[in-house]
Amino acid sequence: MRNIEGGVGAPHGFKAAGVAAGIKVSGKKDLALVYSKTDCLAAGMFTTSAVSAAPVRLSQSNLASGEFWRAVVINSGNANACTGRQGETDALEVNRLAAESLGVPPSAVLVASTGVIGVPLPVKPIEEAIDEAVSVSSRAGGSDAAQAIMTTDAYPKQRAVEFELSGTTVRVGAMAKGAGMIAPELTSSGPASAPHATMLAVITTDAAVESTGDLGKFLRQAVEDSFNCISVDGDASTNDSVFLLANGKAGNRPLVFEPGQADSDAFQKAISTVCLDLAQMIVADGEGATKLITYEVKGAATPGDAKSVAKAVAQSLLVKTAFFGRDPNWGRIMAAIGRSGVALRQESVDVYYGSKSGLQQVVAVGAWAKADAEELKKIMDDREITVTIELGDGDGQAVFYGSDLSYEYVKINAEYHT
Amino acid sequence: MRNIEGGVGAPHGFKAAGVAAGIKVSGKKDLALVYSKTDCLAAGMFTTSAVSAAPVRLSQSNLASGEFWRAVVINSGNANACTGRQGETDALEVNRLAAESLGVPPSAVLVASTGVIGVPLPVKPIEEAIDEAVSVSSRAGGSDAAQAIMTTDAYPKQRAVEFELSGTTVRVGAMAKGAGMIAPELTSSGPASAPHATMLAVITTDAAVESTGDLGKFLRQAVEDSFNCISVDGDASTNDSVFLLANGKAGNRPLVFEPGQADSDAFQKAISTVCLDLAQMIVADGEGATKLITYEVKGAATPGDAKSVAKAVAQSLLVKTAFFGRDPNWGRIMAAIGRSGVALRQESVDVYYGSKSGLQQVVAVGAWAKADAEELKKIMDDREITVTIELGDGDGQAVFYGSDLSYEYVKINAEYHT
Repeated sequence: MRNIEGGVGAPHGFKAAGVAAGIKVSGKKDLALVYSKTDCLAAGMFTTSAVSAAPVRLSQSNLASGEFWRAVVINSGNANACTGRQGETDALEVNRLAAESLGVPPSAVLVASTGVIGVPLPVKPIEEAIDEAVSVSSRAGGSDAAQAIMTTDAYPKQRAVEFELSGTTVRVGAMAKGAGMIAPELTSSGPASAPHATMLAVITTDAAVESTGDLGKFLRQAVEDSFNCISVDGDASTNDSVFLLANGKAGNRPLVFEPGQADSDAFQKAISTVCLDLAQMIVADGEGATKLITYEVKGAATPGDAKSVAKAVAQSLLVKTAFFGRDPNWGRIMAAIGRSGVALRQESVDVYYGSKSGLQQVVAVGAWAKADAEELKKIMDDREITVTIELGDGDGQAVFYGSDLSYEYVKINAEYHT
Repeated sequence: MRNIEGGVGAPHGFKAAGVAAGIKVSGKKDLALVYSKTDCLAAGMFTTSAVSAAPVRLSQSNLASGEFWRAVVINSGNANACTGRQGETDALEVNRLAAESLGVPPSAVLVASTGVIGVPLPVKPIEEAIDEAVSVSSRAGGSDAAQAIMTTDAYPKQRAVEFELSGTTVRVGAMAKGAGMIAPELTSSGPASAPHATMLAVITTDAAVESTGDLGKFLRQAVEDSFNCISVDGDASTNDSVFLLANGKAGNRPLVFEPGQADSDAFQKAISTVCLDLAQMIVADGEGATKLITYEVKGAATPGDAKSVAKAVAQSLLVKTAFFGRDPNWGRIMAAIGRSGVALRQESVDVYYGSKSGLQQVVAVGAWAKADAEELKKIMDDREITVTIELGDGDGQAVFYGSDLSYEYVKINAEYHT
């Protein structure tokens, strides 16, 4: 698997664009288009929130009713969430305008929005900008699209790889956005609902996939191992959406989701890797974040227990502020482990802090392991830190990624007014 | 019901003391004693964390094995949590020393600790200070005791009331501490475990109660309506403990827990009121807090659903930072409602912001209710704000209390080193 340039535009047959429609008062790019010159299979995963934005519900509907798909249209600057009936009408209108401009059925176009909640979507500027986006779109437009979906992100997030499936070269490209309201709980079905800063991702591939069912399984596995394992602030959004489009241009033998089979595993590895890279970029770009912390939990009774523990620790405000203060406060880690809701024996818990500067055991059998203070300090000064938690209860494992909590986080979120 | 002076020392037959044992490096008071000259019934509720401190487990054991109780001994400055076998030995030693000094069986003495985690408890200074506490204890010692249990608290928290039960005057006194690591999930049984900043409360009464079973039910109801409805940072502690001691000195006819019966209701109201006052003091004194926000959820399918929604909103970092920024960001409230895990219809949600300055509806049927911006600003500038959420799904109700999230919170917790 090799890294290549181009983001969502890298796979053959895809084009992308990012233009300024005028939704953002800053005048920055705020409308992204990703489309395929030929029909695609598509899969999506969406927020599990009971308060979902109109574009989330429309995309779910189009995935369910469509027979093929061609494009994703995303605006930033406005979430079109909590906008009532008007919001539904507006999402449908954006969908219709894009379909018309591309010359495809409305059900072939997926939509997403991110930005402020509760403000009606300005459809008029989008109408004019969609035609522009279609006309300027190109294979090289991935970077513009990645910029156009940003809200509080400090930098655009994209990635593309190529690899072989039984001798045929295949490409996967992707872009994502997100820095706040990040604790996605994405599902491919279930209730839809979400509210504002949001994580969004679009993944494109020229691989041929046998069916939308197979594509959905590949996506679900990739999301479970990436976007569903990160948290900036514990707030899942009303608008969280991930799309995967596959146009088959690479000409490989159509992929079936079949763990253990070589091509299936290679494709899974590619989209999982790309999604994990983007997920880690989101955490590292988390609002005000100064640290990227990886929580590895081992020895849980079940993988679900391991994830509950990892998530409780990663989302603890006391743990997050300790990391911001570069304080190796393992007591707060133990406290968070304890309140995770998982039955465990504290006497069998071990905890390690590690980074490129070294590895120190801080907890042995539930108590202070007398780690070296100087060595610990070196680890705490690093930007990327791994906390390994051994529960000693079984074989369940999980990994979760989190940021610290800084003054800057408070500043960003106290000052980002509606 | 009338407010009276004296805190835990106010009920007849109780004495209290707070002395400086030298556990806190500041030299401030750090050892509290509350005791009754005659035997009491006792009940306790403790953290549900799977990582509990040694004193929590010892008090649970003493409540289970004892036949009567006489005292509570609490040290601050050290949580005696995650201290392994040594921690258990140390808690037993403090328990033994106090029992010896008071001339009562060890099982009659309940213990609690709060402070840093993972550092061995300094037993020697406590040994000397216990005798001093016993000798200086008095009916007027409630304030000293309330000071001695403080950690990051800005001020001591105590309350006492007197009222009549079928013509007999009865008193309830109480003290509490807590400002961080506050999201108690207290239970009267279940696994015990907790780690550091902690909420602690001691409630004394001279009411006669029929049995420890009855006393436990009164306490559970009071705690469910107070300490279990607050959150400063969402972090339940390893040491959270609440004790209720009843010595019967008032001479009333012994109380049976019987909702609807006049004396039972009057006693319940008294301890629930005292606990709620203390719980609200904890939130108002929350680390860095500039607001005390009451979340009222109505119209849920069940009371449990109502509490899940209230808690999700109260603990949302985005909601908390918005309140710190005085931003009436109802979109974040809707987002938090949506991700609470409760099935609901966003189209039927109404939200109101209120304070002494007025009341404004901000959400009607799931969308912006066009509230008056000037009136909203007045409400957001107040220190005490009530958010009322109507779900329109049934009769389930709940109330939860939370604080905002400020720079000061981050400062306190990034700099409070182990």
